[in-house]
Amino acid sequence: MLTPPPQRHRFLIIADGQFGPLTSKTANSCIRYFPERIVAVFDRAQGGKTVEDVLGFGGRIPVVGDFAQGLALGATAVLVGIAPAGGQLPPEWRGWLRAAIERGLELWSGLHTFIGDDAELGALARARGVRILDVRKPPADLPIADGRAAEVDAAVILTVGSDCNVGKMTAQLELRDELLRRGHRARFVATGQTGIFIEGWGIAVDAVVADFVAGAAEALVLRAAADADIVLVEGQGSLVHPGYSGVTLGLLHGCCPDALILCHQATREWIGDYHGREPWVKIPPLPELVELYERAAAPVRPTKVIGICLNTFDLSEAAARAAVERAARDTALPATDPVRFGAAPLVEAIVRRTSAGKRGSVGTRA
Amino acid sequence: MLTPPPQRHRFLIIADGQFGPLTSKTANSCIRYFPERIVAVFDRAQGGKTVEDVLGFGGRIPVVGDFAQGLALGATAVLVGIAPAGGQLPPEWRGWLRAAIERGLELWSGLHTFIGDDAELGALARARGVRILDVRKPPADLPIADGRAAEVDAAVILTVGSDCNVGKMTAQLELRDELLRRGHRARFVATGQTGIFIEGWGIAVDAVVADFVAGAAEALVLRAAADADIVLVEGQGSLVHPGYSGVTLGLLHGCCPDALILCHQATREWIGDYHGREPWVKIPPLPELVELYERAAAPVRPTKVIGICLNTFDLSEAAARAAVERAARDTALPATDPVRFGAAPLVEAIVRRTSAGKRGSVGTRA
Repeated sequence: MLTPPPQRHRFLIIADGQFGPLTSKTANSCIRYFPERIVAVFDRAQGGKTVEDVLGFGGRIPVVGDFAQGLALGATAVLVGIAPAGGQLPPEWRGWLRAAIERGLELWSGLHTFIGDDAELGALARARGVRILDVRKPPADLPIADGRAAEVDAAVILTVGSDCNVGKMTAQLELRDELLRRGHRARFVATGQTGIFIEGWGIAVDAVVADFVAGAAEALVLRAAADADIVLVEGQGSLVHPGYSGVTLGLLHGCCPDALILCHQATREWIGDYHGREPWVKIPPLPELVELYERAAAPVRPTKVIGICLNTFDLSEAAARAAVERAARDTALPATDPVRFGAAPLVEAIVRRTSAGKRGSVGTRA
Repeated sequence: MLTPPPQRHRFLIIADGQFGPLTSKTANSCIRYFPERIVAVFDRAQGGKTVEDVLGFGGRIPVVGDFAQGLALGATAVLVGIAPAGGQLPPEWRGWLRAAIERGLELWSGLHTFIGDDAELGALARARGVRILDVRKPPADLPIADGRAAEVDAAVILTVGSDCNVGKMTAQLELRDELLRRGHRARFVATGQTGIFIEGWGIAVDAVVADFVAGAAEALVLRAAADADIVLVEGQGSLVHPGYSGVTLGLLHGCCPDALILCHQATREWIGDYHGREPWVKIPPLPELVELYERAAAPVRPTKVIGICLNTFDLSEAAARAAVERAARDTALPATDPVRFGAAPLVEAIVRRTSAGKRGSVGTRA
């Protein structure tokens, strides 16, 4: 989906039969990132509880056991927060989604099966003029990247990581918020499912046919740079992740970033996303990762890592501060955990980079 | 398509209205690589000519102006060698393809539109038990790569390149032929359209959803290693190609190669595949490319470049020999143009590597 951001919605989340800390990942991400926009979660088995009761976070957002009751709470859109068992849409789901469309509510979905392509629901939505946002569906007309992202006037900042799931999206959202607070025209570019749910637009680049990953990144940067001076692109995967490294490199070359922020979870030593197998890829030390990313980018367009973003959620305050100091010392770069200690050091690095001018020297080490 | 190699076919190639040096790339690749398996090319506008008349190579293979006449020459399969204008199958194409299926001929196609998914033609082929090989169609059940390619007993050799279209497939085909001549159990693994046409199996990795490129490479290696001691994987793109680098890195990490062969066209200085734009990415010197590939591979699984394969088609014999000598000197590696000067130096490097044992030292510099 490469469309301008829509109005802000108030969501009813479908998590029927699966709402829980480990079983409704998409729903839970949305609740974590925009609880203020969620009017209720629908799960027939858990009506009457609060989200906090079920997840341990999320406060007093109600869980409703009846779909119509959820709609009546003032939702303007329905968000599919789980995948139905079996992959196909069960008949009762069709009833709920039909009811939502008939009331004019948008449907937002991260399912692999695209609701907009469903003969019945797609046709109904078109007839009613209701948008269905299938966040995994890539646009039909992606280009092969050809370097146009390097030509935008905005400064383009990409988060890169030691692994999946270390905070590349969160880092950019924190940076965006702090840059906006300071009066900069900054825009976040979502490249994954949760980011698209948060922003209402973007492209899930890992769902794009491989030849078009860099082209998707380029299209996103061009779109975002139309009304921003600082474009903050959500990174994906890692150059050292054996499954997803191709997506990472395509994104790095496609968005032609002026600077990189390297993200890492302080306690992680091995690439983690290998359920059922022994860990087998060791994460290199941060200075090696900095060099690896800079060298991979250089032949296409040189860029520099200008800061380190640590995720320290599982450390004590003292250990987290020590980890941040160690990262800064080891890399000679500004470092922070933006959620815990604020984004200021990285925002300042970005602003220094930006005020040096787009065509000026590529971000210099602090 | 991840299926065992079929019997050898004799092909009738469809190139109706477009057969020419610049307008029928797929047909021309097939004619270049397996002319002995082509009974005729079908083009209503050029019936009566020979392929040599039209392309300047291909010898006395006839061009026929009538489809039935082509079928009558003893074809066992029809190969779609061009894309019809507009992307959709025109009515007369349907007639030709239907006639072929009704005679029990396989259809081999590299179209983006999958013939096997066509309601009419797919159903007819299923009813007749005729295989349709849509070479761009990825298998439905690809895994996320998890390093199993590193566990095969066969030695895995991947060609990598300075750019697209420098000879990565040709190098592996030449190496395969020479290894077979010397009695080794070698198998070529096709990762692109033309390679799949040549071998009858493989996966077009650039047509796979980005998350599954490395998984596709892994699946191919596991399949090929089942009955070979040396697995020769066709590389794709280049780590310095701004559009396709993601595919290249996914392939590099997914197949866990024991050794790499670096391919380059001797006279090429810039990444070339940018029609309509100025060239903008300079190809680094060969020693830098060697280092770039080895460093990109290392965090997942260390490997070494063990030889250089030069494409010197546009050089005089003396200039070609000088280019090969220069490449060998600059990189301290064996080098050759395998088409022009034979594959022996690289075959010997591979055999040295193989006899050192799969678990032995990773390919050492010559």
